[in-house]
Amino acid sequence: MPELTTSQYDLVYNTFSFVFAAMLGSFIFFVLARQQVAARYRGALIMSALVVAIAGYHYFRIFESWSAAYELVGDTYVASGTPFNDAYRYVDWLLTVPLLVAELVAVLALSRRQSTSLTLRLGIAAALMVALGYPGEVADDNMTRNIWGIAGTIPFLYILWVLFRELGAAIDRQPGEAKALVRNTRLLLLATWGFYPLVYMVPYLDIAGATTTVAVQVGYGIADVLAKCGYGLMIYAIARAKTEADQQAGEGLVAEAVPVASMD
Amino acid sequence: MPELTTSQYDLVYNTFSFVFAAMLGSFIFFVLARQQVAARYRGALIMSALVVAIAGYHYFRIFESWSAAYELVGDTYVASGTPFNDAYRYVDWLLTVPLLVAELVAVLALSRRQSTSLTLRLGIAAALMVALGYPGEVADDNMTRNIWGIAGTIPFLYILWVLFRELGAAIDRQPGEAKALVRNTRLLLLATWGFYPLVYMVPYLDIAGATTTVAVQVGYGIADVLAKCGYGLMIYAIARAKTEADQQAGEGLVAEAVPVASMD
Repeated sequence: MPELTTSQYDLVYNTFSFVFAAMLGSFIFFVLARQQVAARYRGALIMSALVVAIAGYHYFRIFESWSAAYELVGDTYVASGTPFNDAYRYVDWLLTVPLLVAELVAVLALSRRQSTSLTLRLGIAAALMVALGYPGEVADDNMTRNIWGIAGTIPFLYILWVLFRELGAAIDRQPGEAKALVRNTRLLLLATWGFYPLVYMVPYLDIAGATTTVAVQVGYGIADVLAKCGYGLMIYAIARAKTEADQQAGEGLVAEAVPVASMD
Repeated sequence: MPELTTSQYDLVYNTFSFVFAAMLGSFIFFVLARQQVAARYRGALIMSALVVAIAGYHYFRIFESWSAAYELVGDTYVASGTPFNDAYRYVDWLLTVPLLVAELVAVLALSRRQSTSLTLRLGIAAALMVALGYPGEVADDNMTRNIWGIAGTIPFLYILWVLFRELGAAIDRQPGEAKALVRNTRLLLLATWGFYPLVYMVPYLDIAGATTTVAVQVGYGIADVLAKCGYGLMIYAIARAKTEADQQAGEGLVAEAVPVASMD
């Protein structure tokens, strides 16, 4: 761990606290707001709640690990000797990333057969992506990092293929406002997930040091808030739009039923 | 950190504990009481619950940081060497201040288009106000403090303009008792938010020392209880008044009331 000035240390420390607070707030929101959407979309909100609860737990641990890894000597933070445990992130992703793809499938409310198949395939691909990346992350040499990095990219490309090709038709059939929201959510997923491989490649640049450590930790924090809380809010917006569309369709059905009822 | 007498230290310590207890109590109230209002106003109560949960977390941290920053030597509290982390307040505001303005918009129950536009504009202005204030808060010289302070005042004036001019007509259309309550809530927001810039300007007075430290921390505590718990209670009162007005209107106009009731 490189030496840090107090403002560098504090920036990372406060970012971790911010991310924890964002996860806590999002958890409460998803738990309470699930009753604002129709029953068939509540599964997606429950998954959003799980994701931010699991991520909140891991950020609490990362926060504690960060505090323990440094000690203040004069006005500089130096390594205390206790190692900083970055593996919490991979454990977190192994649990949350499959849930994030499952959320999107759940809110689309496809047929049960299609949902199950998509959730299984995307979930396994997401878990594989994280698991294959990890040996490269902890490798000392760039060649090993390359090999595992490329291996992890294959399931990532498969996920993109499913989301942008196979699911394209299903997304086009979403009612009204929901269609644009689902497309934006898919783009948010692509943009935020794209950040993680960039961080993965930082060691290639050979720019280890205080600035890199701070940039990586703050960058991961912002990416996690967008990819989990922001993404969950988009899923909520889709569920709300679809609940309203369902209600309007339901009113249309009731109106059509009136002549039948008046026959009695 | 200045030296403090035991009674000065205890006053701040007990204020933090009081604020934490107030946030905890308010959180439980907003979670349980959301079912006392019609479904369309529950979003506002959920946001009130989020605000006090996030603030409660930060007060817990501030409380711990305060305890760690001092140690009792004889009958005087002296700095322990562990820095007091005041940044928790800004992190808290970055998350809660946009939610506070969003709460007020949500309880007005405007058209979806108007709501989305207002929430986005007010939320971004609120986050900007906090983010621009921070570099000034941690600056060592008053000139830097001035520049960022003035920069942060611009989004604050924009928020006031929206609340008092643009929203004026919408507030005048609120039913019965709700109209006066919304006006009072808006005044509460102005009065409590007005306290923060006063504290921001304390360093200009060149009165650093024990009394200033105690006054600032106790003052922030009281302002936070009024601006979050008190404000949330006003929002609840508005939601109750509007629920009753909806029910009375619904009795005369059963057909229109049906879709609202079916959201439960």
